[in-house]
Amino acid sequence: MNFCSHCGQPVRFAVPEGDDRPRYLCDACGSIHYQNPRIIAGTLPVRGSQILLCRRAIAPRKGYWTLPAGFMENAETTQQAAARETQEEACADVSLQGLYTLINLPHINQVYMIFLADLAGGFAAGAESLEVALFEEHEVPWDELAFPTIERTLRHFYTDRHADRGFPLHLSDITPEDRERYFGSA
Amino acid sequence: MNFCSHCGQPVRFAVPEGDDRPRYLCDACGSIHYQNPRIIAGTLPVRGSQILLCRRAIAPRKGYWTLPAGFMENAETTQQAAARETQEEACADVSLQGLYTLINLPHINQVYMIFLADLAGGFAAGAESLEVALFEEHEVPWDELAFPTIERTLRHFYTDRHADRGFPLHLSDITPEDRERYFGSA
Repeated sequence: MNFCSHCGQPVRFAVPEGDDRPRYLCDACGSIHYQNPRIIAGTLPVRGSQILLCRRAIAPRKGYWTLPAGFMENAETTQQAAARETQEEACADVSLQGLYTLINLPHINQVYMIFLADLAGGFAAGAESLEVALFEEHEVPWDELAFPTIERTLRHFYTDRHADRGFPLHLSDITPEDRERYFGSA
Repeated sequence: MNFCSHCGQPVRFAVPEGDDRPRYLCDACGSIHYQNPRIIAGTLPVRGSQILLCRRAIAPRKGYWTLPAGFMENAETTQQAAARETQEEACADVSLQGLYTLINLPHINQVYMIFLADLAGGFAAGAESLEVALFEEHEVPWDELAFPTIERTLRHFYTDRHADRGFPLHLSDITPEDRERYFGSA
């Protein structure tokens, strides 16, 4: 951020009076520009013993497999965002079940929220996907997953499914080291 | 938003090519300025049969009772944000338990995340609180709560506690009508 989005004058990065962390400040109009984490909402679509994955057609991690997910937009709920992203990336209508993983990525200011979902109808590659396919557990391309959030969500899923104890929310954090394996090789 | 925060030139509000909703666009430098919902993280601090509430010293809803909560900052996790806000508003160190309510407010682009928390040590009014106090269930000031998210979280809490079935995540949405009772009278 270089200029004030309200008045167009240059901003500076400093701690406002009464605050405890630096913000972008405009001395011309007095605006304080806060920046906050963004939510990435998506689904883990399940059909019987199979799950749906999308192969990314766009950067980052083009060509790698992911769950349908993307940035939550203003004026929608997390559930609407998750269902919309599933429709956009996999052309699939899903029935959302519970929130399944909530994963913080504080070093990149993101919070992932993945819902379990029932996939009943068809699917196809959306504009951001090269292909979309169903996988049995032994077919999951573990070495070709796009992001650590996806791997973690799938690990939880198979662990919970084998334990036959339901699918409770899993809340966790991802560190820069967790991401290294993915983005060192990208 | 009136000006591009990158180059300082005027922006326009229009649907970018390949997108399906309007964004602030800068024709001078090509920047697209996305706007996304913000997370409000907080806690429901519990000590035995009592819960902790804070009376707000600031707008909106100054003088009304709330749970300690506030905007999640960049570079922190949701759990860190919830604990920090509890420290700032109630000067209380809490042990976070599970995520308890996740409430969408799509009309104001917010997502609330309230964690159950154990309150072991002391507490006091922080800079944004007029007072902080413990309440038994029959003492909860239902007609003087600050926000519908707070009332909903407390209703879930007492229902779950009476049912003695644990405290699972409750995911829900708040509509403009839900807020009317609070902000019509503010």
